[in-house]
Amino acid sequence: MIDVAIAGIGRTDYTVRSGRTPLALAAEAVRGALADAGLGPGDVDGIATFGLLDTALSLSVADAIGVDELTWSTDLFGGGNAVVGMVRLAADAIRAGSARTVVVYRAFNGRSGQRLGDAAATIALAVPEAPYDMAQGYVVPPQYMAMWARRHQHEYGSTCEDLGRIAITQRAHAQLNDGAIAREPLDLDGYLAGRWINEPLRVYDCAFEVDGGVALVITSAERARDLAAPPVRIVGIADSHGHGGSWNQWPDPTSMFSARVAPRLLPKVSSVLSDFREVDVACIYDCFTYTVMAVMEDFGFAPRGEIGRWFADGRATFGGDVVVNPHGGLLSEGYLHGLNTHYEAVLQLRGQAGGRQVAGAETALVTGGAGPFGGAAIYAVDR
Amino acid sequence: MIDVAIAGIGRTDYTVRSGRTPLALAAEAVRGALADAGLGPGDVDGIATFGLLDTALSLSVADAIGVDELTWSTDLFGGGNAVVGMVRLAADAIRAGSARTVVVYRAFNGRSGQRLGDAAATIALAVPEAPYDMAQGYVVPPQYMAMWARRHQHEYGSTCEDLGRIAITQRAHAQLNDGAIAREPLDLDGYLAGRWINEPLRVYDCAFEVDGGVALVITSAERARDLAAPPVRIVGIADSHGHGGSWNQWPDPTSMFSARVAPRLLPKVSSVLSDFREVDVACIYDCFTYTVMAVMEDFGFAPRGEIGRWFADGRATFGGDVVVNPHGGLLSEGYLHGLNTHYEAVLQLRGQAGGRQVAGAETALVTGGAGPFGGAAIYAVDR
Repeated sequence: MIDVAIAGIGRTDYTVRSGRTPLALAAEAVRGALADAGLGPGDVDGIATFGLLDTALSLSVADAIGVDELTWSTDLFGGGNAVVGMVRLAADAIRAGSARTVVVYRAFNGRSGQRLGDAAATIALAVPEAPYDMAQGYVVPPQYMAMWARRHQHEYGSTCEDLGRIAITQRAHAQLNDGAIAREPLDLDGYLAGRWINEPLRVYDCAFEVDGGVALVITSAERARDLAAPPVRIVGIADSHGHGGSWNQWPDPTSMFSARVAPRLLPKVSSVLSDFREVDVACIYDCFTYTVMAVMEDFGFAPRGEIGRWFADGRATFGGDVVVNPHGGLLSEGYLHGLNTHYEAVLQLRGQAGGRQVAGAETALVTGGAGPFGGAAIYAVDR
Repeated sequence: MIDVAIAGIGRTDYTVRSGRTPLALAAEAVRGALADAGLGPGDVDGIATFGLLDTALSLSVADAIGVDELTWSTDLFGGGNAVVGMVRLAADAIRAGSARTVVVYRAFNGRSGQRLGDAAATIALAVPEAPYDMAQGYVVPPQYMAMWARRHQHEYGSTCEDLGRIAITQRAHAQLNDGAIAREPLDLDGYLAGRWINEPLRVYDCAFEVDGGVALVITSAERARDLAAPPVRIVGIADSHGHGGSWNQWPDPTSMFSARVAPRLLPKVSSVLSDFREVDVACIYDCFTYTVMAVMEDFGFAPRGEIGRWFADGRATFGGDVVVNPHGGLLSEGYLHGLNTHYEAVLQLRGQAGGRQVAGAETALVTGGAGPFGGAAIYAVDR
């Protein structure tokens, strides 16, 4: 099986009001990623995106940037759980010979357009299961997440302060990132003074919704070595999706998809890791702080109930065990629906992260998704 | 690269009013396909569907039939151009080791729910390019198709009677198919008496919209050989998607995606074919009669402008060169959005097509899509 790599990255500014269409945002991000790789539209034969009807369709974007024809095009209907799946589809297409150079992107007006955190989005999407959840009062994502976080508190004694430490650590990272939307300093008092969204989640526990676009170019590792940017290898990917369309019915909300992904991913990445704690950077999909808590415990970074302490002890930041979301994550860089988290992993592994560079970063854990739906990948410097 | 095969097929009745949810239709079709393969929900690790917000989501269907967990799940936003792409994603996932047993399905209330041929669907989908087309009067698919068909008539002298021969041939096939929605006899007088939808397309030139569900089980050919049903091998697949999101702007509407797919597909299937005219069955995505005309000319079954004569001479039916849409196609079996066309290819290659069996069928050409967007595959008896 051929090795696959990320050969280019591009992004727009992340803002609260782009004043532009998703098509314009997507085209800018995709053009940027191609330029970064030293490629042009004529090199693209595959394109993929995901979204919830708020994105520019892949064929439109290809047309907008001047691609004449594609042999592979994929528009996924999905949320954060689809990010890793999208990268995987592109990688598999390249491995199977269905495409040679695939651009994947996510672009939307997630703040000034339809906010996914708004009840109107849930209603507009009309997912068939939604009415069953709504009857029980579950309409927007933080409501589910709050329930799960509360269960974790009950089972393992985790606290709001533990969640706060995650938000604070990532905010400190965002202060090193010119491209982050939320850079105001945040300490524990500030965190605790934040308004409730859904108890025990405060405003700082929730991703910062933004407008913008981000894109990656994926090709074979062999080809990537001849391109303009240092290749980042996709060493392995694993997904787990259980328990149907509802977030309201699954056995143990104190862990997530990652509990099932971790043992499945490790054997695939044994060429670079023997334990997930060996990674240099952890780019964790953080729609909410609690997602980071559950996912990182699932990956074994700390025992159940102890991730908050682990963050408080400085083990999740520069000089610690692993730098978690050096860009500030979706909480503070902005909610580009998780694809920006992949962008950050690439930047770090290239050594191009500027003031927030993790020294000598060689491997990154990257996740996408929350609850019972999601996936994870290991990316590594190409050696 | 490992060989991939279709190991099971399932379908519901196709009706004008199911009285059921897409979820129930999907679950029935998927359960049927698994039973056909001698598999159960515990064997499924991948699932995919496509649709335009009118389908049951893949995770819901997996949950409904009792799948505990998936390692691969894909919900495509797309129309008929996504059918072949969906099969290809599943095949590539199996080849790349991302999944072992994938169920793909399409289920919707395409008649009693939102009809895709209705302007309301175009508006509800809110594809960003739609307003540009609407300003020129293009709202529903037959409007585009009529323009292309007219151009073909202008360039090559094809006639309404030529289109009629396609409808009539397929209707005659549907009369041999208990599972077809439209089985009333149709002759040229009857065809010409049909009301205009968009000139030069009459009602019989348009797919018969229905409610229903259809599913395929895809796995490695090696594994399929140990299952309950005779495997049908996916020998090769190729896609072509050009010219953006609009159906209104592409250079030559007298041919389709297939003009680009054909030369790309042939080398991939050289183990079973040296010319597309050698296939025993042609299962052509026929949203409209004109699609069959353009696509079959693209694949070289007859020179430009001569497909109507070719049909009239009986070369597209039993005893002719190749049997085109022995099930009656989307025109007469029903518009299951093209996945039923793949179902038919499998049935024929297994020798299980009953009164419409093509004797000794060993290879089938299967297409999906129209205009500049689509793909094609060669399926073959596993030898």
